[in-house]
Amino acid sequence: MQVLDLNETNEYTPEAMKRFFLVEDSPHFKIINFNLDAGVTFPVHSHDLDGELSIQVLEGEGAFLGAGDREIPAQKGQILISQIREPHGVRARTKMRILVTIAPPI
Amino acid sequence: MQVLDLNETNEYTPEAMKRFFLVEDSPHFKIINFNLDAGVTFPVHSHDLDGELSIQVLEGEGAFLGAGDREIPAQKGQILISQIREPHGVRARTKMRILVTIAPPI
Repeated sequence: MQVLDLNETNEYTPEAMKRFFLVEDSPHFKIINFNLDAGVTFPVHSHDLDGELSIQVLEGEGAFLGAGDREIPAQKGQILISQIREPHGVRARTKMRILVTIAPPI
Repeated sequence: MQVLDLNETNEYTPEAMKRFFLVEDSPHFKIINFNLDAGVTFPVHSHDLDGELSIQVLEGEGAFLGAGDREIPAQKGQILISQIREPHGVRARTKMRILVTIAPPI
């Protein structure tokens, strides 16, 4: 077992998305923390693979994005659940921290 | 895709552990929010199965527990990563909210 600390990854890159791989080499899941500066978009994408992912808003607010850039309001404490093959993305209105878990990892 | 909201599960049962299944019937992972009243212990346990889990502290503080009730200090923003077959548990010092992701689900 190991303990990871999101308090140590609270860093942003101006006008960009900063990425911290928390769990990268497990056969079971991948866990990534992305910190988006205000106004930044994590573009809608998908992969033609079986699997599911969660996107949890840790801080800030904006929108979850779906097919056709459909926006679903997103704020701290909300979690998007999506198939990996469904289009998904995130748009940050304020500075925004998200935690993404992908199972199985891709 | 669906959006879950941890702001709607911020409830405690006195001297006990309250459990909210957020994702229960996916073949890929299970996501559960547990809210522990202050002083409550989620007893150490394990299952002889392949798989991995994360325990993220959403609010409060206490300890992650390992084999032999070994304590690892736990506070908001920290995440325990453990194999399902490794002994793991949680002890709440204050009121404590945790988010558990199990992949594959058991």
